Amino acid sequence: MNHAWLAGIARRRSIATLLLLASLAVSLVSGGVHAQAPADALPSWNDGVPKQAIQQFVEATTSIGGANFVPPEERIATFDQDGTLWVEQPMYTQVLYCFDRLAELAKLKPELWQIEPFKTVLSGDRAAIVKLSLPELDKVLVVTLTGMTVEDFRGEVRDWLARAKDPRWKRPYTDLAYQPMKELLAYLRTNGFKTYIVTGGGQDFVRVYAEAVYGIPPEQVVGTATGVTYSYDGLGNPILTKDPKLLLNDNAAGKPEGIHFLIGRRPYAAFGNSTGDRQMLEYTAAGQGLRLSMLLFHDDGQREYAYGPAQGLSDTKVGTFTQDLYDDAMKKGWTIVSMKADWKRIFAFE
Amino acid sequence: MNHAWLAGIARRRSIATLLLLASLAVSLVSGGVHAQAPADALPSWNDGVPKQAIQQFVEATTSIGGANFVPPEERIATFDQDGTLWVEQPMYTQVLYCFDRLAELAKLKPELWQIEPFKTVLSGDRAAIVKLSLPELDKVLVVTLTGMTVEDFRGEVRDWLARAKDPRWKRPYTDLAYQPMKELLAYLRTNGFKTYIVTGGGQDFVRVYAEAVYGIPPEQVVGTATGVTYSYDGLGNPILTKDPKLLLNDNAAGKPEGIHFLIGRRPYAAFGNSTGDRQMLEYTAAGQGLRLSMLLFHDDGQREYAYGPAQGLSDTKVGTFTQDLYDDAMKKGWTIVSMKADWKRIFAFE
Repeated sequence: MNHAWLAGIARRRSIATLLLLASLAVSLVSGGVHAQAPADALPSWNDGVPKQAIQQFVEATTSIGGANFVPPEERIATFDQDGTLWVEQPMYTQVLYCFDRLAELAKLKPELWQIEPFKTVLSGDRAAIVKLSLPELDKVLVVTLTGMTVEDFRGEVRDWLARAKDPRWKRPYTDLAYQPMKELLAYLRTNGFKTYIVTGGGQDFVRVYAEAVYGIPPEQVVGTATGVTYSYDGLGNPILTKDPKLLLNDNAAGKPEGIHFLIGRRPYAAFGNSTGDRQMLEYTAAGQGLRLSMLLFHDDGQREYAYGPAQGLSDTKVGTFTQDLYDDAMKKGWTIVSMKADWKRIFAFE
Repeated sequence: MNHAWLAGIARRRSIATLLLLASLAVSLVSGGVHAQAPADALPSWNDGVPKQAIQQFVEATTSIGGANFVPPEERIATFDQDGTLWVEQPMYTQVLYCFDRLAELAKLKPELWQIEPFKTVLSGDRAAIVKLSLPELDKVLVVTLTGMTVEDFRGEVRDWLARAKDPRWKRPYTDLAYQPMKELLAYLRTNGFKTYIVTGGGQDFVRVYAEAVYGIPPEQVVGTATGVTYSYDGLGNPILTKDPKLLLNDNAAGKPEGIHFLIGRRPYAAFGNSTGDRQMLEYTAAGQGLRLSMLLFHDDGQREYAYGPAQGLSDTKVGTFTQDLYDDAMKKGWTIVSMKADWKRIFAFE
């Protein structure tokens, strides 16, 4: 046997193989072939209706030639953040940030201790803080979230996230992302979906950590946003300063409006956990073809928190999941995920 | 030689090769390896300073281990649209759309013929139209660009683009995209850059055709935007209706502000052609590391149009490229592209 000849064949074969496999890999990456559904893509999910609904949705929307095939460029999936991707109790993380940040500011400006509503927040008196009106809370947000350059804000949030700890789990807040949802994000992306956060929380705030925590880049975070103003610093360098003017109130009807503004396509899948997500789920479900609208139900007081209908409550301080929303979701055939029944584990650190 | 054994090796090798090549291809797609710069990636560009500046920029920002390497997720390139990616003379395409659309509306509502400024626009009297004030023009925009669902608007624009023709070239407006810029977009994307349009034109308008014409999906179009309102139609289906409230005036200082709002990262490369792009180019150039700020100079009256400093004019009706901007760009070392000298051809149909 002529070894040189064999080597030649092997070389030619390997070039052909390279081209073939490279194009195959590109197809895989771009979602051009049908569902990649390894049995363990969702290992933290128990077998059950929600897991099956997710898998069937992905299989149907990625099967070329199937009635529900969705071209890769249209595969958009949107996720609420607080209470859907991570813990929102006992208070939104961003509110805790604002309170801590106010304490930092008060070190530089002690006069804040004499002025309401700052005085109340700085006192740490929870009963009094809870009673603050929305306009009063707004003053705290304006002082802590605006007036600085976008880079300074990013640095302040990053520093806080590195040192702040949730009092119950004694861990950084970024550890409190739900492991099953992280698997779901990755599973959708593997199948060509572009995953977005669509949050009532601050767009700039969530953008600081979304890439590290969820693999979601800043440009795929849609959130409540105030403006920025372009100007120049003392050296003539251009700067963007955060200002208090509200551009997008990304909650309730503001969610589909924000999706149109920042994405411009209707999602094929949407995930939420509260009445603030209802319109996003509705808008998603109303699109043509197969869509997936899913609600996360906080019914696990042992491993996380139980609130909403799980407690017989029609409302809670944050993350309102009302009985009405529950009934509506059942009627419309949205998928309801029970954290207690459907999730093997809640956090990666368990 | 044991052929079964050989086949076994070959099989094992091909699996290993598959994994290796798949990961290589993924790296290529994600821009994880250094510049892919085939000699002919920019065939419509003459060799010269701008072409070299582009190639050196891409080489430097994609060379792993190099001083100017940029991680793939941060590779953002932003492009003005009118006058940078396609022809903006003698009038912005979207303005022509609004005038034609007004004529369509007047068939259904003949009373528009009796009301100013509609009467003037419908008359087709160019001299009178040019004299309309901005608030008057605004009324035409409001009537033609708002009040309908986002789907209806998309359909109206799509229909118009399919039948409207530029009077000089007798071709659809979408044929008037600059071939060298399409090559540049593709070249940047091949090297892992995410390409965005950042236009003073209407975000919803440009989104209708950007994917087909430039390969830029709706979510990567940032433009002047009015709001949408979420509500329900007579059958209870959710709809988004375009309303006249201005959300983003994406011109001049509004461009970096819009970039922060919709992208959340500073671009590494930006391309424009007028004073409306100055702040975007400035903001891009002011970032750390190697950046590319490029201005397109319309100096080819034969093949396209000559205006701005090419005509000794400090201003023109649209697409203002002033002498001041030219001088500033030279001083700051921005790359100036002469359409006459640097482009072999202007349009794909040539």
